[in-house]
Amino acid sequence: MEDFFEFYMPTRIIRGDNCIVENSKYLRKFGKKALIVTGINSSKVNGSLDDVILALENENIRYKIVDNIDDNPKISEIQGIYDNFLNEGIDFLVGLGGGAPIDAAKAIGVLFRNTGITAMEAFNMKNLKSIPIVAVPTTSGTGTEVTPYSIITYPKNRIKKDFGQESFPKIAYLDARYTYYTSKEQTINNAFDAFSHLVEGYLNKKANFMTDIIAIRGLKVFRELKNKALEGELNHLERQKLQTASMLGGLVISQTGTSIPHALGYVLTTEKGLSHGAATAAIYRGYLEKFTDYDKIPSLLEVLDFKSVNELIEYIWKALKIDIHLDDDEITRYTNAMLNNIGKMKNHPKTVKKEDIQYIYQRVNVK
Amino acid sequence: MEDFFEFYMPTRIIRGDNCIVENSKYLRKFGKKALIVTGINSSKVNGSLDDVILALENENIRYKIVDNIDDNPKISEIQGIYDNFLNEGIDFLVGLGGGAPIDAAKAIGVLFRNTGITAMEAFNMKNLKSIPIVAVPTTSGTGTEVTPYSIITYPKNRIKKDFGQESFPKIAYLDARYTYYTSKEQTINNAFDAFSHLVEGYLNKKANFMTDIIAIRGLKVFRELKNKALEGELNHLERQKLQTASMLGGLVISQTGTSIPHALGYVLTTEKGLSHGAATAAIYRGYLEKFTDYDKIPSLLEVLDFKSVNELIEYIWKALKIDIHLDDDEITRYTNAMLNNIGKMKNHPKTVKKEDIQYIYQRVNVK
Repeated sequence: MEDFFEFYMPTRIIRGDNCIVENSKYLRKFGKKALIVTGINSSKVNGSLDDVILALENENIRYKIVDNIDDNPKISEIQGIYDNFLNEGIDFLVGLGGGAPIDAAKAIGVLFRNTGITAMEAFNMKNLKSIPIVAVPTTSGTGTEVTPYSIITYPKNRIKKDFGQESFPKIAYLDARYTYYTSKEQTINNAFDAFSHLVEGYLNKKANFMTDIIAIRGLKVFRELKNKALEGELNHLERQKLQTASMLGGLVISQTGTSIPHALGYVLTTEKGLSHGAATAAIYRGYLEKFTDYDKIPSLLEVLDFKSVNELIEYIWKALKIDIHLDDDEITRYTNAMLNNIGKMKNHPKTVKKEDIQYIYQRVNVK
Repeated sequence: MEDFFEFYMPTRIIRGDNCIVENSKYLRKFGKKALIVTGINSSKVNGSLDDVILALENENIRYKIVDNIDDNPKISEIQGIYDNFLNEGIDFLVGLGGGAPIDAAKAIGVLFRNTGITAMEAFNMKNLKSIPIVAVPTTSGTGTEVTPYSIITYPKNRIKKDFGQESFPKIAYLDARYTYYTSKEQTINNAFDAFSHLVEGYLNKKANFMTDIIAIRGLKVFRELKNKALEGELNHLERQKLQTASMLGGLVISQTGTSIPHALGYVLTTEKGLSHGAATAAIYRGYLEKFTDYDKIPSLLEVLDFKSVNELIEYIWKALKIDIHLDDDEITRYTNAMLNNIGKMKNHPKTVKKEDIQYIYQRVNVK
């Protein structure tokens, strides 16, 4: 047991079918008018928008809706939404959907709380508070419902912004019924995202006694889904488990942040068009190979019931569609870019050298 | 995995030697003037009061000290302290010591936040907020540093008050060095209190997916101390583990509350003079015997490494000094008193009948 740790996670977590309608009482104290921030389609199809509206109406809370958030909300959109609703007397926000609408709600909430600051300015400031955010995830992957992070596109790359510990959502309502309408491919991608948060949070320099408790439990839940989650076809109980594993992954990275796979994987999305899940997965071969002697690898393998790092790698590669090839120029370019941004790898427990990064990108090409 | 759960625990937990001085920055945002609420002696002897003062001074926070809280703070004292410092411009409170000063700080904090309400009135109201509370425990047992509960004597019995979820301490600073000056007997009593919170929170109607994660981990920590904690002689690492187990016990009961042993044990303190630990322990024989068929008993025994309920009972009775005898009249009287207060047993997963209570009190007499 290491000496020092710190743990802070103030989000109220409520899980269960119909939990938002049955536990609407908590919304009361956030105010009299809400702005629902959601995507174009899915929250209408999966029933979540109706439930949110019913919960608000039960508490006599008025609301406005923004329903055009796509997968990569831009900083200009954040500013535009705030400007539109500036004089509407909005007391709190409901982020409803996959990661993007919840992340957008967090960013908009910061603007409402800090009047006079532009979205662009906010993205260069630390420890900003927000008006209350209620998070209702409809996919199982990002864990953003229990983190203070917001991923926003600026101007063309996605940047991860930690608004500071005062901008955790006040409540996360987890209703697995809303995740039914995710496509099979998207479910696999999201499941891998949840999985990678648990792994990268566990194999993390900032991991501590408390985060390890949660990471291990999350990985155990994932193990129960091992042969289903990465096939993308889940029954209700399995969807609930995946949603819970995703939330636990969020809890872990809310304390630790992610690590090398997330840091090195982003470029495979922006430059090679891989999904976030596949891009992260592609990094795992080199990451784990470079890391086999780390003292937490045996417990990771044990809790996931894999015999070796290789078996784990094969499992990941079988599930995700990682059909890219990096030529030498790309590997050099990506490696140098990461070297200029070495802070992104500060969560790795060992010093990361140039040849480590290069090796990890080279191993993306192994089929 | 059961469908519904709720989890909310907003206290920032910081653990480590010298953690309050090294992490004083968090105190800044609570205001410019603090009231330190502590006991008569121990915080001066164990170094914790000096550390708290140094931390406050580092942040340019002025302070006043109340240092006469004894083990059973009375409601009249709570009122008196508030009245004395009403016009001092107090922004937040530091509860420093065993359970009592922290519990007193919580109660006083509620009065500061709700001006015009008397302490007596506050104890009959629900969901009261408080000005910020910083908790610095110097014993390992109550877990009050991470709960919204406050045990106050009124007028002659100790009553447990749940002030509501807004009165969790803002920060719990856990520095195991402060626990060195607890007597051996008191260490054993406190250790058993921590243990019983974990057990009663695990075998609890309100136990859920999240609390079980924490309870199991806390019980595992306790198992590592099994042959030391209840002997009361611990080295530094063991003290830190016990402090952590106590905090985890607090986390669990902050969600579940305690169960039959705490409910039935109180009278053995007030009427028979047993310490809180011994009084609770005395109930365990009948409690566990009545409960051997419950589906969580095998996992409880496994995680604690006991072969049977009997072995666990013998372990408890060997450690605590439970040298009392209840005559038939007392058993009848205590049983009837509990029947009139059956709400106290609502956390037990099964219906508790009169003969169950009677049996449990009868088993106190077995040596």
